[in-house]
Order: sequence, then structure tokens, then C-alpha cells
Amino acid sequence: MIPIRLSRIIFLLIFLAVLLLNHYYISKTVDDDDQLISSNVRLTGKRLSSHPSYTLDDLDAVSRADDLSYRIKEMIRIKGSVSNELKNLESRKQKLQNDISSLSNQMIEIEYRLSKKQSDLNRLYLSIGQAEFTLKETSSVNQPFLSRPIKLLPLSRPQDYSINENANNQLINGCSMSSCFDYSRCSLTSGFPIYIYSSIIESQSTGRLSSDNLHDLVNQFKRNHHNTLDGNIACVYIVLINPQSNLDIENIQSTLHSLDYWSGDGRNHLIINLNQNVDIIDYGIKSFRALVLQSNFNGNHLREDFDVIIPSLTINNNNHLISSSKIPNCPARRKYLITYQGSLNQSTSNDGQYRQLFEIMTSITNSSTNDEILFNFNCANTNCTSFFTQSTFSIVLPPLNTLNQRGYKSHPVLIDETLELLSFGVIPVLIGGNDYKLPFHEIIDWKKIVLHLPLARMPEIHLIVKSFSDSDIIDMRRQGKLIYDRYFSTIDSRINSLISFVRHQRLNIPALPVVENTLPFLFNSTYSSNKYLYAFENPESIGGNQETEIDRNLGPIESPFPSITFQRNFSLTLCHGYSLWNSPQLNPFILYPNTPFDPVLPSEAKFTGSGYGFRPIGQGAGGTGKEFSEALGGNWPKEQFTIVMLTYERETILIKSLERLLGLPYLNKVLVIWNSPRKPSDDVKWPDLGVPINVIEADQNSLNNRFKPYSQIETEAILSMDDDVHLRHDEIIFGFRVWREARDRVVGFPGRYHAWDNNFNSWLYNSNYTCELSMVLTGAAFFHKYYTYMYTHSMDKAIREKVDELMNCEDIAMNFLVSHITRQPPLKVTSRWTFKCVGCPVRLSEDDSHFQERHKCINYFTSLYGYNPLLQTQFRADSILFKTRIPHDKTKCFKFL
Amino acid sequence: MIPIRLSRIIFLLIFLAVLLLNHYYISKTVDDDDQLISSNVRLTGKRLSSHPSYTLDDLDAVSRADDLSYRIKEMIRIKGSVSNELKNLESRKQKLQNDISSLSNQMIEIEYRLSKKQSDLNRLYLSIGQAEFTLKETSSVNQPFLSRPIKLLPLSRPQDYSINENANNQLINGCSMSSCFDYSRCSLTSGFPIYIYSSIIESQSTGRLSSDNLHDLVNQFKRNHHNTLDGNIACVYIVLINPQSNLDIENIQSTLHSLDYWSGDGRNHLIINLNQNVDIIDYGIKSFRALVLQSNFNGNHLREDFDVIIPSLTINNNNHLISSSKIPNCPARRKYLITYQGSLNQSTSNDGQYRQLFEIMTSITNSSTNDEILFNFNCANTNCTSFFTQSTFSIVLPPLNTLNQRGYKSHPVLIDETLELLSFGVIPVLIGGNDYKLPFHEIIDWKKIVLHLPLARMPEIHLIVKSFSDSDIIDMRRQGKLIYDRYFSTIDSRINSLISFVRHQRLNIPALPVVENTLPFLFNSTYSSNKYLYAFENPESIGGNQETEIDRNLGPIESPFPSITFQRNFSLTLCHGYSLWNSPQLNPFILYPNTPFDPVLPSEAKFTGSGYGFRPIGQGAGGTGKEFSEALGGNWPKEQFTIVMLTYERETILIKSLERLLGLPYLNKVLVIWNSPRKPSDDVKWPDLGVPINVIEADQNSLNNRFKPYSQIETEAILSMDDDVHLRHDEIIFGFRVWREARDRVVGFPGRYHAWDNNFNSWLYNSNYTCELSMVLTGAAFFHKYYTYMYTHSMDKAIREKVDELMNCEDIAMNFLVSHITRQPPLKVTSRWTFKCVGCPVRLSEDDSHFQERHKCINYFTSLYGYNPLLQTQFRADSILFKTRIPHDKTKCFKFL
Repeated sequence: MIPIRLSRIIFLLIFLAVLLLNHYYISKTVDDDDQLISSNVRLTGKRLSSHPSYTLDDLDAVSRADDLSYRIKEMIRIKGSVSNELKNLESRKQKLQNDISSLSNQMIEIEYRLSKKQSDLNRLYLSIGQAEFTLKETSSVNQPFLSRPIKLLPLSRPQDYSINENANNQLINGCSMSSCFDYSRCSLTSGFPIYIYSSIIESQSTGRLSSDNLHDLVNQFKRNHHNTLDGNIACVYIVLINPQSNLDIENIQSTLHSLDYWSGDGRNHLIINLNQNVDIIDYGIKSFRALVLQSNFNGNHLREDFDVIIPSLTINNNNHLISSSKIPNCPARRKYLITYQGSLNQSTSNDGQYRQLFEIMTSITNSSTNDEILFNFNCANTNCTSFFTQSTFSIVLPPLNTLNQRGYKSHPVLIDETLELLSFGVIPVLIGGNDYKLPFHEIIDWKKIVLHLPLARMPEIHLIVKSFSDSDIIDMRRQGKLIYDRYFSTIDSRINSLISFVRHQRLNIPALPVVENTLPFLFNSTYSSNKYLYAFENPESIGGNQETEIDRNLGPIESPFPSITFQRNFSLTLCHGYSLWNSPQLNPFILYPNTPFDPVLPSEAKFTGSGYGFRPIGQGAGGTGKEFSEALGGNWPKEQFTIVMLTYERETILIKSLERLLGLPYLNKVLVIWNSPRKPSDDVKWPDLGVPINVIEADQNSLNNRFKPYSQIETEAILSMDDDVHLRHDEIIFGFRVWREARDRVVGFPGRYHAWDNNFNSWLYNSNYTCELSMVLTGAAFFHKYYTYMYTHSMDKAIREKVDELMNCEDIAMNFLVSHITRQPPLKVTSRWTFKCVGCPVRLSEDDSHFQERHKCINYFTSLYGYNPLLQTQFRADSILFKTRIPHDKTKCFKFL
Repeated sequence: MIPIRLSRIIFLLIFLAVLLLNHYYISKTVDDDDQLISSNVRLTGKRLSSHPSYTLDDLDAVSRADDLSYRIKEMIRIKGSVSNELKNLESRKQKLQNDISSLSNQMIEIEYRLSKKQSDLNRLYLSIGQAEFTLKETSSVNQPFLSRPIKLLPLSRPQDYSINENANNQLINGCSMSSCFDYSRCSLTSGFPIYIYSSIIESQSTGRLSSDNLHDLVNQFKRNHHNTLDGNIACVYIVLINPQSNLDIENIQSTLHSLDYWSGDGRNHLIINLNQNVDIIDYGIKSFRALVLQSNFNGNHLREDFDVIIPSLTINNNNHLISSSKIPNCPARRKYLITYQGSLNQSTSNDGQYRQLFEIMTSITNSSTNDEILFNFNCANTNCTSFFTQSTFSIVLPPLNTLNQRGYKSHPVLIDETLELLSFGVIPVLIGGNDYKLPFHEIIDWKKIVLHLPLARMPEIHLIVKSFSDSDIIDMRRQGKLIYDRYFSTIDSRINSLISFVRHQRLNIPALPVVENTLPFLFNSTYSSNKYLYAFENPESIGGNQETEIDRNLGPIESPFPSITFQRNFSLTLCHGYSLWNSPQLNPFILYPNTPFDPVLPSEAKFTGSGYGFRPIGQGAGGTGKEFSEALGGNWPKEQFTIVMLTYERETILIKSLERLLGLPYLNKVLVIWNSPRKPSDDVKWPDLGVPINVIEADQNSLNNRFKPYSQIETEAILSMDDDVHLRHDEIIFGFRVWREARDRVVGFPGRYHAWDNNFNSWLYNSNYTCELSMVLTGAAFFHKYYTYMYTHSMDKAIREKVDELMNCEDIAMNFLVSHITRQPPLKVTSRWTFKCVGCPVRLSEDDSHFQERHKCINYFTSLYGYNPLLQTQFRADSILFKTRIPHDKTKCFKFL
């Protein structure tokens, strides 16, 4: 209500003022008339009244008229001279005042320059102090800096041993990694080279796999990055066997023993059994010191922490390998709460336990009132319609013939069914509790995605599944999709998983470091401190007039330094296996130089021995204004950021943008991605910013280039900027500080959101003013370099292809990716800028087809993820003392933020 | 520089304006003179010039003078009449205008009232619509609402079975929970009642534990909440045995068999072996279907997923039970990087493997240059000084006599040493890899806190431990302290852990629900919709004039409704065991009605089947202004918050504060904690806020009462408020919206921080203006009810005692707790309020001793946690469109935020 009232009051006031003025002028006119008349009276009447005795005397009148006329003339003369005099005086005064004001202006200007110089000088002193401190700090650092791991390999082939049968029997039962594995071939820094035997050992007499399939499989193994052709340097040796009956076992056994690197006892060998219906130990194959990897283990055959339960590697039926991508996570509850499809029925359930089970399940269906339970007892493996897409939970029973056969540790039917359910977004309910193990059970937390219930809990099953909330169901489905997609969705991913499992779980060897993109330089300038200092001496050189008025004391002058990399190779591998295998944030396949998920040091650590790189505000005392601007503070050591700028044939705009970066603190480097095939023209004058400018040539004009993990990016923090974006320095620095607190999120400036279209039940991209946003544009945003690896290597390829197809949506893709990984919305930072670039050509984003494409992108990406990972946020980050009234002797954090 | 310049420019402008005015008036005076003279000239000169022919004619002059005099008189007369006329007109006009303006004021007033009524009407319509929607929604909800679990118990004692020896042998080897455990006694809703046999079965002939110890131990078991005295309803039966030699085994065995509820085969029995040096299976004790819990298992004796490895329960040497609380986490690196203290030396290492080990370790010490390795090979168990407090890592070797004895699954010496190291904040390096298991290894992620390395990696050990970063080391230490304190620090916690382990890991039964505080009412008002509407009709009734002008459309009118509770009992227990046991956020001992760590639904879920309770902004289309204020939006369903207000004998101030809450949307209830023993006076007029006001009587005047989990708090969100705090409604609602995005953090208004005192190497409490804060005061802060359970039941008791001792620091304690659990700083929300209460007595916090106490608190709490958990933050949350220039046809999120 206030504004209306206020405007009315203001209107009233103006109205009153006009009235008053009106009144004043009217009455003034009246008064003036009065005055005029009375002054006439004064002039004339005075004489009339001063000589009352002379009334109507003619002569007198004549002389009085003469007198009057003379006096009038005289008065006119005097008036003229006085008026001139006044005018002269006035003009002299005017001149004096002009002089004074121009002089005082000069003085203000000089004082201003003086104070600026003084503050620059102080900054220099500070920077020198900091540099000296850094020097001291560096020389006393007590931890080795690690770099990208190098390989240390064994030099010779393994020695031969011959062992007797007794020893072998003992080993089979007692084998553990310590007792049976030769670690000397697998140094932690070896990179885990594996040698793959080219031929598959098969039964001669009976059925064989089609030779095409086999050939493919060996080649798939050989495509693995750990593959080596030199058996002498290998850590482990992989041999595929495919026994079809126990007639040929002698044959197979002897072929095993004659393998090139068998060394008498099969040490460091992985025997992978492709026939998942068979437990090779049941067949009588002796593995000696080799690890056995198969799906089918009888109880005492599985040597815990040695042998490995794996999924099937030979799938002819492609149903088992449907990518779960197309199955939407929502709705949480499908048509049926819980289903069962199988061949348990009255006729098959002869045994007491089966009969009991059958009776319990029948009574559950009968007691349910809501049609939410579908138990189909007459369903052989092939001849019944699948209800998977309509099931929320689904029961997996151990094969009928194994239920009583105690001691099964894993069974291929259970594994296949479980994986198939996961691929359809159904939550498997595995009856049999912990008796049955699923692949890689030592490290994959199957309980998060599969309900494990003992047979005896069957009567309680309805209560249990009914109690699961929608968010729990969708969370399980999302995690199930993660596990399925990552480890089981293709033969390649299964091979990759089993190799990674042996490398990581059995040997604790870190993964291979991630591949970075290296592209040729078109231009490369290096750090030049002179120019940087020059910037401070000549603030006018910092682009644009509006900048010169801005507080420039936003941080110390530093030379560029990189972030520390590959610090956690061993700690992640040895201690955080669970997170590597089960969290969407990390994965066991790749070693990243850094991640945004590292633990934070406690705040006293920086004062008690772990202070390296820390720059606490006011040396730990805290503060505002000067103290704040001098140090990064926060919970992480000092660091810098890299600006990555994508450009396409807009040299002038680009150069102007670059020039505006002059003097920006904490800037490590500017990386310009030259997306155009036309090289920059020869007369481009690259500005000298003090920090390096690297211009690299993209191999293809693609918006995905914005997010590639270039080896030139040496900092964790990346500020992605469009070439026409104008951010003020204080806005950038504040954004950087906020990012340092939310390292796993996209921290940026302009916000957008996804809106639900009730008419079409789909998403719309929306750029209106909003109080709730879910994306920030990457035309001006900070994010961690880690996400460039994820975007380029881990994200669904279809997304990058869509970005290339439309030349659009790369920012939406990045927001999806980060929210998917973190389940957090982005963080918007305050900014006073307008996204419009004055004088730039009309932006792509303005036209309607661009918008239509973005609608499509959101829905397409949603279908790929199975859900829309974007989340809403209703606040933005402002500086703590922004718009706070503080006493005059105090200073704020930023002058204008 | 701008403000200075601006003020100078303004000053200059004013100066110029004064000059101009001066000049104007001076020249005006001159002009007026000119005018005056020239008007005289006009009056006189006109006549002179109009009759040029009569110059100096006497008669003419006389008649002209007469004429002149007459005309002057005439003019004066006319002037008088005109002037009167004008004045009359003027006053009439004046009157008219006054009338007009008063009328138009009246009209504005009426229009204002009209629009206010209209908006109230609209809100009512909206609220009615929402209420109808809620009704519809509630009737169609497809998920059962769970409540605090009730117990379902078995009705009879177990049936007796007798089994023959053969069957038993088979069972011992093949026992799994499915095959050997009777689930029918342990319904999921049974609450896991346990029966404890009062006598300990001991060897008669040889050594016995001191009877005091034994008695204590049984009593400690019986103090467990699951204990029942009625064996007929018990789920499991616990029997303690203490065999000292294998002479009496027959005796012990028969005593076992004659136990009251043994039922022939010992089903559902836990045999806890107190003699940790002995594997009772080695002694020949037959457990039949009972679970064996002990520290010492030979390989094939441990039935996986059935028997349990436990720590020692009979510790005479108190060294093993030092609380790790007093060991500081910092510095990360202690004097020695890695130590070994033991009896491995040249004389003891006869065997080849030992000799090798000894040689490798010797060569490591020799090759180290930095004095960072201390291997003491001549250290028997007792007679050498402990270097624990100076060790970062320390090597644990399996006892020399077991290294070759393959098949040991667990060994008490390893367990004791590992736990002892953890209690000193040393990271154990367990040599022997995965061959040895630690207590509760199926669920505790020991790899996070203990380095597991095979013997063969010994040469690489220096490289590995050297590579660990400071933050990794402190993180491991912190996690180690968590695991040690929670599961092993006292006999009670060990007993609690083993019972919880069996309940959760073996039986998947949810824990007992948490205990809430219920205190008597001093006053209890209920929801009255009339009064609430009255508030909207009479905005003046909303306390204070400043409020009446505030936008009141901050949310719909709703009746109070509670948050949904106990939704995740089964999902947490069945699927998130890992988090329950290994994260600081959750624990396996207690079931909470809600936690702030629940998974969030994807944003389309609310439109596709899981919309219950969701109120998306603009029905999903997003929006600002009206749409935003009408719906909570965000990622969570609608909810309300409870205001908890602690008060002590300041009735007037309290009542005023309560009155200010009238009309506050989303408020569920106001809970006033009456901390004074003097009851409220009879003439207190409790305001009628529409929502209930519960006044409850504290049993003790304690600031800890602020954070007790009162059963009256029915929402997840709590707004803790001092009784003298004045927050505006829009600030509260914005804070609530921000909290909904950061449910695990303290979201509040006034910020404070902890500063490092370099002189005393300790922390100082600081309330200065700051750009980096680490606490928000709980005198005005939102937090999750979950933290009241943690504060009251899980937080170190010493903290609450210190709060009571000083009558201070409860807010510091809460900030410590939340940052410890989340490793996140608090979140500050924008506010325009000043914390000072006008007219209130001087606040406690103003005087110096209060401050001194707070310094002490920070340092004391830090010592208890082992580190200072507070973290820094450099931003605050503001509304998204706050201070953003938007077009005139758009509206903001909040008018003044």
C-alpha cells in the first residue's frame, strides 16, 4: 500500500506547492500593484503632503513641475551610474568565485590521486609482504607435492614354481591375497598393466560359443586401458575359459598349466569363467594360486577377499542390456506396488518351505484391497508379458532348485534378474537375505538399491514396501540406475568394472589419471609483472570510465600459481573405496587431479602446522574493509581462477573484454578458445594483462569446447565467460569467494529456471524475472575443473551431440550435470551488471527459435537422465554487510556489493 | 572515492546555487530599481512626452498638476477597489481548493481501504482454495502415514527342539540367519526385546573374573533399553560365558544346554565369550544354532553373516578406554610421521618372513633423512614409553605367533591395539591387509580410519603415508574419533553396539524411537480461526505502527498441521545401514522422527504422482510478487515452523513479542519455555494469535531448555527466538524459505565469529562487524528439530554442564554441534532489524564478563571436540530480486527484502 500512498502524498504535496506558488504569484501581483501604486503615492503624495501650504498656487506649481522634471532626470542619471557600478562589482565577484571553485576542484583531484597512490603503495607493500611469506612458507613445506603418477614396472617375467597337489589343496582353501598373490609385480605406481591371453580355453567335445562373439570379447578386454602386450611387465594375467561339460576338464586343466606366464602355480592369474551356469570348482578345475571370477559359486568354493563374483559377460539376449536411460524415474509409484513373476506355484512347490512361501504370497494377494499387488505364479521364463514398467518393487526368488541347497553364495539367475529389474527402474526385493551375494558385493552397497529380506520376513513384505516414501523410492531408483549404468549396462562396462575391482579392491592400486585436452596455441603470452604494476599506476588503462571509479583494492598482487594436484591418489584409493564405488560424485575408474568433494581442514589447523597457503583475514582476527580485501580467508588455502572464454569471430568485442580484466586479482590465466576455423587476424593487439593469455585453436566449432578439460587450466576454479559479458571486478571477486565455499556448485550471475507446462506435461525454459531459479548461465559462472572432466568424459554422449546439433543448450547441460551429481541447486551471486552488451550484435539468445530449442533441450536431457535433476533455490548470495547500516568509522566488505 | 567526490559536487552545486540566487537577487534589486525608476519615468515621462507642445507653459503646468493630482487620487481609489476584489476572489478560491483537497484525501483514504479489503478478500479466497486442495489431496493420498512404531511381540516361549550331533555339525558350518534363526520371535515391529541370563557361565576349576566385575557387566547389559525380564516375549537371549581352560568344557556345555530358553538347539541365543584370548570353538564348545560373539576367530570358525566379531568387554587396564576427547586433532602431522613399537627384532624374527619384515623396516628407518620415522623394535607390552601422542601413523603387526598361522579371521591383540591407537588420534596401519577383520566389520567402514596394507606393501609404506594430505589425516582422525567414541569408548557403548549390531545387521529391526521431553503446561491455547481473521481485518492490532505499513501478503492463511514423522524407519534400516553406522549425521542406536538429510524429490515428481503437499510457485510456472507470496515453492512439500521462546520473568516484553506474531503465515505454534520457578502472574493476558500458544514449565532454569526436544514441537523447523527480539514478518518468512533449502544448517540473523588469538594460541569470541562469520545467534535462528535430539542426547554432556554452570554459551554449543555434524558454516539471512530491544533492560550479552565466558566456552568446547568445528562463511542470503532494478510492471519477491 505504501507506494500508492506515497505517490499520492507526493502528488498532493506537488499540488499544494503549485497552489501555494499560484497563490503567491497572484497575491504578489496584487502586492506589486499595491507597491507600485503606493510608491507612486510615495513619490507624488509625499510632495503633496510635504507642501500642504502651497495648494493650487500656479507659480509654485510651475516651479514644482520644473523641479520635478529636473529631479526625474537627475534620478535617471544616478540610477544609471549606480546600476553600472553594481554590475561591475557583480562581474568581479563572479570571476573571483569561478577562480576559487576551479582551484578547489584541482585540489580535490590532487588529493584523490594522492590517496589512490597511497593505497597502491600500500597494496604493493602488502603484496611484497605476502610474496615474502609465500617464499618462506614454500621453503618450509613439510609435505611432498605429488604430481601425475608415473609408472614403475617390473623388469622380468615371473619366476617358475612347481607345487605339489597337497600344497595346492591347502592354497585353494586358504588362499588370501597375502598368501597367494605376488605383489612384487604390482607396485602401487605400476598403473596396473594386464596381459590378456588371446585364446579362450574351451571344451573341445561339446558346445562352444560362436567364434565371433568370443573374438569380440577378447578384443573388448584388450581395449581396456590397462592392457599390455608385454607379459613380462604385466601385473596380472587374464585367461578366459568356457567349459561346457566336465568331460574335457583334464584338457582344459592342462591348457591352463601350459599358459605362457602360468609359472607353475598360476599366481597373478585371473581365470574368468564365461559359462555362468557352471561353478568350475564343481567341475574339478584346480585354480591353484589364480583368482577365479565367475557368477556361480558354491558356498565353500568362494575364497573371500580373493575370488570375485562377476556378472555374465556373454549375453546373447540383448534384453539384459537395455540401457535404463529411457525409463523415467517418475512417477515414484507405478501401477503395482509389488509384483512377482515366476514359476512358483502349487504344482512346483512340493517341498514344505516352498508350499509355505506360496501360501504366504497367496494370502498377501488376497488380503490386499487396492489392486496394488500382482503375483503371477504361472510365468515360465519366456512366455509371459513383463510388468516391469508397471512395477515399483518386484520379488526375486532364488531358483527353486537352489533354495534348499544350502551354501550357494551367488547364483547367475539371481544376478541376471536383479540387473534386469534395475534396468527397468524396478526395485528388486531379494528373498534369501544375505545368503546370496551379488557381483562385487565387497564394495558395491547393494542394500541401497535392492531390498534384502530373509524368507521368514515374507509376511511383513507388504508393510515394508508400503512404508517406503516416494522420495526413498526415487532415490533408490536413481542409485540403481547409477550402479547399473556404471558397472553393468554394457559388456564394456562389465569388463571395465571387473578389472577396476581387482585393481582397486584386491591390490589398492590407484586408477589411471584422467586424460586432458591439449590443443595447439594460437597465441601465448606469459606473466609480466611490469605490465601488471603498470595497470595500477595508470588506472585509466583499466577499460572504461566506469571502472576507474570502482574500488580497486580487491586483493593482493600475486604472480600466477597453479592449484595442487593429485594429492589424494592414495587416500582415496585406500580409504574411500565406498564413496568411489557408490557415490555419483566419484568413480573408481579414473583418477582426477582434484575434486570439489575434499574434506575441509578445521579452522585451527591453519594456525597449528597446516597453515600452508592459508590467508586468514586479519591474520585470524577477522575484520572488514582493508583486512578483508587483503586476504581470501575462508576454509581453503589461497588459490586462483582461470577465465575460459569462448569466442567466434568477434575480435573487437573479445579484445575489449580482455582489456577489462587488467588488474583483476586472483586471476591465474585467461584461456581463449578460438572456435572459428579462421585464425585471428594479424593486427589483433592482444592486451598485456600481466597474467598469461593463452589462445588455443579448437578442432571444431562446438559449444562443448567451453567445458573441455584443457591441460592449460591449472586451477580448480574456472570462471566461464562469454566474450561479450561485462562483469565488474568486485563482482567477480565476490563470486570467486562465494564459489570457494560452494566448490561443488555452479556459482554464477544471471539466473534462469525450468517451469512446468501443465498443458503438455513437459518442461519449459524460462528467463523471466523470478523469485526461484534453478540454473545460472555459464556465460558468467564459476565451476570446478572437475566438472569439465565429467562433462566431457562421463556425461551421456547424446547430450554433447544435441549441443552440437543445435549449437545451443551447453549451459543447460552443465546445470543438469552438476545438479545431478550434487542434488543441489546452483548458487546465484549478486550483480549490478546487465547481461546486455552495448554495441554488440543481437545476441543469439534473443530470437525465438533459440528459446524453442532450449525448451526441447530441457525435455530431452530430462529423458536421458530419467528425471530432471534441476532444483529450485530462492535466495542469492550478497556480501555480508551489503546495505547494512554501519557506523561511520567502520568499513564494508565491498564498497558496492 | 565517489562519496567524497559526490559530496563535494553537491557542496559545489549548493554553493553555485547560493551564488546564483545571490546574483539573481542583486541583479533583481538592480532591475527592480531600474523598473521602479522606469515606471516613474513611465508615469511622469509619459505625460512629459505625450504633451511635448506644452513645455514650460505655466498655466498648462498648473492645470496639468491638478490633473495629475486628480488622476493620482483616482488611481489610488481604483487600485483600492481592484485590490479588494482580488483579495475576495483569492480567499474564495482558497476555500474551494481546501475543500477539494480534503475531499480528495477522503477519496484516497477510501480507495486505500477498499484495495486492502480486496486483497484480504483475495487472500481469503486463496486460502479457501488451498484448504479445499489440501482436503482433496489428503483424501487421495496413496501412502500410509506412519507414526511412532508400536510393539508387536510374540506371545509364548520358544518351542523345544532336540537335535542330534550330526545335524549340529552341519549347522555349525552352514548356519546362516535364514537357516538357523527363528524370525517369528522378532517381528519388525517388535522393538527387539532381549532377555539376559543373570549368571555368567564360567570354568569352575580355573581362574575366574572378579565377581564384582561380572556382576557389573551383567547389570550393564540389563540397563540396555531392549532388555526385558520376560523370556517369553524376548527375541534373543544373551548368555555370557567365560571359559578359562578347556578342562571344564563339558560342564560349560551342559550348563548352556540347561538354560531356561535354550530350547534344545540354542536358537536366538547370543553366546558372548568374555575371554578374548580364547576361541570357544577351539575349546570344543558347540554353539548349535546360537550366534557366537567373540574377539578371537580362527578362519573356518567364523560363520559369515552369522557370528560376530566383538571387542573385549572385560577391560581391567583402563588405558584401553581413555576417551579420545582430550586428544586434539591438530596439528595434522605430529612429531613422527610413522612409528612402530613392539617386540619384532632380530632375536624374535627367526622365520624367513619375519626376518624379511624386520630387514625392510630397518632399511626404511635407515633411508629416512628427516627423523620422521621411529621404529622401536625392543618394546615389550609394558616396559616402554608410549609415543602415541607424537605419532601420526603407527604400525600394527599381527602377533608374531599368528603371522604364519593362516586362517585367523580376527585377533584380540590387533583389535585392542587398533582401538588404543584410535583413542590417541593415531592412524593405525594394519599389516596383514584384509586377512584380519575388526569388530563389526560388515558394517563399520574400517578402511576410512585404518590403513589396511598387505605385508608385501611394507616397502611402499613410507611413500603411502607421506602422500596423505593434512586434511586427509585430520579427516581420518575425526572419523576415527567418531567410530571410537560411539562404539568402543566405554563398556556401555560396546554393549550397546553389539546389541544394535545384532538388531540391525542380523535382523533389520529398526531402532527404538527417540525419547522426547514432555513437560507440564502452564498455559495452552488452541487454534482459533476467528481471531486470526480478525488480525487481517484490523491490521492495527498487529503490534506496533511500523508493522502496519509492511506488506502483509506473505503467505496463505492455514490451520496448523504437523510435519510427517517416522517415514523412513524401514528404508533407513534396510537400505542405509552404511550411513547409519559410519556418518556423523545418523546413528544406528536411535530412530528419529525426521532428519534434515532425507533425499529430495526430483522436481517433476510433484507434477507426476508425488504432488502431495507440494505448493509450486504459480502452479509450476514460477513467478514473482503475488505468485511467489502465495506458495512456498522450493524442493520440499509445504510445512510450518514452531517458534520456541525461552523467557525468564519478563512478562511485558514477552507478551509484546507474542503480539507481534499475530498474522504470521506458516506459524504452527508458539512454545514458551517458562524458565522461572515463579509461575506467570494471574493477570497475564496471553494474546490470541490464532495459532496455539503453549507455555510449559521448565523443571530447572537452564539455557539448555532452549534446545530440548519437546513433544509439543510438531514441525521439523524450529525458529528459536529470544523473548525480546523484534523480527519483521517478511524477514521471518524469508528466513524460513532459506532454511527449507538448507535444512541441515542453522539459518539465522545476527552473525558472530571465532577469531584466532596469536598471542595465546587460542580462540576468541567476536561480535564485531565482520565480512566472515562462523556462528549465528540462536536468539533468532531456524534449525531442524533433529538437532534438539542431538543437543540433548548425543552431544557431550560436559558441554551442557558448562552451559548450566555459566548460564551462557548455549548458542555457541549449538553452532559447534551443527558444524561438527555437517562440516558446513551457518547461513546468515538478511535482516533490517537491530538486535537491540528498545526499552528492554540491559542485555546479559552487553557486559564484559559475559564476553569473557564466551571466549572460555569456545576453547573448552574445542578441547572437547578435539577441534574447532566452526567454519567460515563470507556471504549472506538475500532475496533474489533484492535491490535489482526491474521494470515497473514487474513485482519483487518481497517488497523490502
